[in-house]
Amino acid sequence: MAEYTLLNQINSPKDVKKLNASERKELAEEMRQAIINRVSKIGGHLGPNLGTVELTIALHTVFDSPKDKIVFDVSHQCYPHKLLTGRQRGFLTQEGFEEISGYTNPQESEHDMFIVGHTSTSVSLAAGLAKARDMQGQKFNVIALIGDGSLSGGEAFEGLDNAGDFKSNFIVIINDNEMSIAENYGGLYGNLAELRKNHGQAKSNYFTALGYDYVYVENGNDAEELISVLQKVKESTHPVVVHVHTLKGKGYKPAEENKEMFHWTVPFDVKTAQPTVDFGAKGYGEYVADYLEEQAKKNDKLAVINAATPGALALQEFRARHREKYFDVGIAEEHAIAFTSAMAKGGMQPIALFFGGFVQRAYDQLSQDLCLNKSPAVLVIENTGISGMDATHLGVFDIPLMSNIPNLVYMAPASVDELYRMLDWAMAQKDFPVAVRTPAVKPQELKFKPQKPIVLNEFEMTKKGSKVVLIGLGSMLKLAEDTADILAQKGIDATIVNPRFMTGLDENLLNSLIGEHDTIVTLEDGVLDGGFGEKIARFYGPTGVKVYSFGADKEFPDRVPADELYRRYCLTAEQIANKIL
Amino acid sequence: MAEYTLLNQINSPKDVKKLNASERKELAEEMRQAIINRVSKIGGHLGPNLGTVELTIALHTVFDSPKDKIVFDVSHQCYPHKLLTGRQRGFLTQEGFEEISGYTNPQESEHDMFIVGHTSTSVSLAAGLAKARDMQGQKFNVIALIGDGSLSGGEAFEGLDNAGDFKSNFIVIINDNEMSIAENYGGLYGNLAELRKNHGQAKSNYFTALGYDYVYVENGNDAEELISVLQKVKESTHPVVVHVHTLKGKGYKPAEENKEMFHWTVPFDVKTAQPTVDFGAKGYGEYVADYLEEQAKKNDKLAVINAATPGALALQEFRARHREKYFDVGIAEEHAIAFTSAMAKGGMQPIALFFGGFVQRAYDQLSQDLCLNKSPAVLVIENTGISGMDATHLGVFDIPLMSNIPNLVYMAPASVDELYRMLDWAMAQKDFPVAVRTPAVKPQELKFKPQKPIVLNEFEMTKKGSKVVLIGLGSMLKLAEDTADILAQKGIDATIVNPRFMTGLDENLLNSLIGEHDTIVTLEDGVLDGGFGEKIARFYGPTGVKVYSFGADKEFPDRVPADELYRRYCLTAEQIANKIL
Repeated sequence: MAEYTLLNQINSPKDVKKLNASERKELAEEMRQAIINRVSKIGGHLGPNLGTVELTIALHTVFDSPKDKIVFDVSHQCYPHKLLTGRQRGFLTQEGFEEISGYTNPQESEHDMFIVGHTSTSVSLAAGLAKARDMQGQKFNVIALIGDGSLSGGEAFEGLDNAGDFKSNFIVIINDNEMSIAENYGGLYGNLAELRKNHGQAKSNYFTALGYDYVYVENGNDAEELISVLQKVKESTHPVVVHVHTLKGKGYKPAEENKEMFHWTVPFDVKTAQPTVDFGAKGYGEYVADYLEEQAKKNDKLAVINAATPGALALQEFRARHREKYFDVGIAEEHAIAFTSAMAKGGMQPIALFFGGFVQRAYDQLSQDLCLNKSPAVLVIENTGISGMDATHLGVFDIPLMSNIPNLVYMAPASVDELYRMLDWAMAQKDFPVAVRTPAVKPQELKFKPQKPIVLNEFEMTKKGSKVVLIGLGSMLKLAEDTADILAQKGIDATIVNPRFMTGLDENLLNSLIGEHDTIVTLEDGVLDGGFGEKIARFYGPTGVKVYSFGADKEFPDRVPADELYRRYCLTAEQIANKIL
Repeated sequence: MAEYTLLNQINSPKDVKKLNASERKELAEEMRQAIINRVSKIGGHLGPNLGTVELTIALHTVFDSPKDKIVFDVSHQCYPHKLLTGRQRGFLTQEGFEEISGYTNPQESEHDMFIVGHTSTSVSLAAGLAKARDMQGQKFNVIALIGDGSLSGGEAFEGLDNAGDFKSNFIVIINDNEMSIAENYGGLYGNLAELRKNHGQAKSNYFTALGYDYVYVENGNDAEELISVLQKVKESTHPVVVHVHTLKGKGYKPAEENKEMFHWTVPFDVKTAQPTVDFGAKGYGEYVADYLEEQAKKNDKLAVINAATPGALALQEFRARHREKYFDVGIAEEHAIAFTSAMAKGGMQPIALFFGGFVQRAYDQLSQDLCLNKSPAVLVIENTGISGMDATHLGVFDIPLMSNIPNLVYMAPASVDELYRMLDWAMAQKDFPVAVRTPAVKPQELKFKPQKPIVLNEFEMTKKGSKVVLIGLGSMLKLAEDTADILAQKGIDATIVNPRFMTGLDENLLNSLIGEHDTIVTLEDGVLDGGFGEKIARFYGPTGVKVYSFGADKEFPDRVPADELYRRYCLTAEQIANKIL
């Protein structure tokens, strides 16, 4: 059992300022213990947080939060900050784990500026705070802490570029831990490597090219060196980049050695470094990876693209086996879509994979670079639908986002079998971009065996009944079946439809339902607003047929368990059957 | 009358290669005449195209299009290319003006790689072509031509960053004409200025920092210098940036002198450089600018943000009068939204203005940086709705894009009077981000006088009737009124509703309509899919009340006149009345 002698005395950053050098060293060790404690028990970002313990101590020693404002990029590196701003309980007790999230949130603490969970936003957000400060004649420091792969995102560049000609204090700290979420690709990371190698010198310097003063901190895990540098830049009246070289995973050997695995990790045994959760049967990610593996064997035009998330998308084995067909473009979703579109135009058969909550980072590229150009690329949007994730990582907005773009075919499979059919169909055609979404549920729960071949915008009636139609989109087909079972007990023989497509209606089938049915029920695991059910409601609008749409509310629930959300949204078979009856 | 002796002999790039230096000079003059001819008669991008005449001649002299692939960023600089690839008619005759668009389009010519009209995409698209080439063992050059402000967009950085470590031929040509659409802001343009000043030398070089070889061309309007440089980089086996210094507007004095005005211009008299179209009465942009002017007088917290489009948004006078309150962040919509959100959090009252088709470049920032954080910023989305614009510049996707994001309040005013009420209401509250859209129609046609004060999600019934309800969103309230007039002649006294809000339904009002009405008609000037009418259809879905939704189809019409689109979409009073009857 670790002791937290010093950590327990830190009620706010004020207490950090009282420490001497040897106490700071001791505090750092205690903080590492606390971070490992939390992450080993509930999972989370380990490597980047272990790497920035001293940096955070230095920040809270030199600056005066919340008067001085520190903006944490993507929050990968905010755990040490939480430990020093009165939120130790988030790392020590089960209740605390639940109460304190893994991301910054002003509702949690006045020391957090924004709710942040997507990368590459910190410089822009800090720039807005700095400009508001200057316009109001206020005096304080604004600091953006960015790194750990976030610099490859376009918004980070846009922010750096714009703030590069500010005429006042603006501090950007680059946490350079030599690794992105997966690996750093691209030119900028070569520049960082050159700067590291030559103690901050390079033929060209990305940051000074953008107008920043530049300071290099060789040992970013030495609080004393950091404090001395930060004290200097505190008084700067010009934008400055402090390039801090840290060790990702510092203090926990397995995390130092396997940076990718411990970037974000499931719960693990601290002694053995092995996961303590049973992953059980295969997830959708693995099934998609199997598909890619099969394709790689027979399709020499295959190219697999992702934006820095091989772990979350189960692509690591594919990467190891097929380096030449695998492209991780870094955290750069916009580029990923345009690059994929052009690959298809160039004669390849690209499949680009995205985590559900992140594809929205490239809406304009979906619309313009991909769909307007009708490039026959294939996208797989994984981990969509209702889940218990953080408000920043929800997968329920993809249907309104994607299904209302012209030329795109967007499909929702009701099982792995159907997923494979859809992917085969997508790969076999050359007419338009096709995207397929996979849900955040266990594939083993979805046993649907598709009968009807895939034909554009044709729905499949899986059971013919009367009076009530249950249209279950993708994984919700199972819920339609369960609801039908309950209705059957009450003497209602419901028709069940698997729509398969979200981007076009099967008007023949929908029209044929009129007459024998007076009630249509739509079920989807996404927000209702702008989603699939509304398209069905509009279709039947002029007919007088009654349509009931069930799906998620338009909201940002934060770590609300999925089963609670299903109940909240009236998405259980009992609730739906009751509504119908 | 200009003579096009040489230009008329150019049927394809092959013919360009036959010319000698003096003929190239002559050809350049003829091309300038042709460009001025087109733009003076139908409007378009003048300055950037005049500046890149020699560059394009050099490209088609050295490279072998379409085997070699040239990707034009945002197409601002594609007119000379069109002139050299068999599309002279697009610059010489009225039929040609209509046939040939101002943007690249593979349907027009095999020499065009993509349909492009949004900025900052060329490097990513070219990267995909280059990678597809390498994977298939093909041999040709891939060239991205970017510049004229596009480098500040995040996607351009993402592409440069990723392609910076390619190991094969990849040529990026920077057309540095010293100006963005408005002015270049930000750090990178400082670096370009330093490089220009020192003949390609600088303390740091943005491009070499990203891993590129770098060549500077001082006189980018000298075809011979360009040809010699391009011949060298043609054989390069490493990514290379050719930084070409051109004169925006070259060859037409007024465009050289007023770069912003002639970046994109309406038709003008070549002799006087004055517009030849009568702008007539004020547009929505001017009315919004008046509002900003009033605010600036009384509100010391006001900050006005835009992304490089002061001309299109009528912000030039505001900029001149209120430099300290005005922020043009460059072509960087993602940063613009995050910056705006943070300004609001920092105590200012920011109003950010976007051109309708461009706000989609920042969906993730709308969702995460702005709405999840509930920053009380105000957005004005201008030039939305159905128009006759290019497929790349449509304003009909904003409703599905924005109205399905939690926490955002999105409003559509039915007239300037109502626009002002909405803006006042938005500025007076501190609870959520509010966006207001203005339509691409003449404000003078919309005379609606609002009676009911703005209250969140309350619709206004402007006329009480029976049987039929016409819900006209924003500018479509007028169409609802016109339709009601026709219906009145047929003995139907329709109810008219102005919904005002797109992000929340007035359930009390909608419920109160049931009983006395059996038909609800929704009218919107945006795509129906994911839009406003579908929300109404879903609301009434369970009631049996009939709902007819009218709006735009999900498609990318390209320069189809607005009135033709209105008819295509059944959006004339006669068509709607007939449907109802």
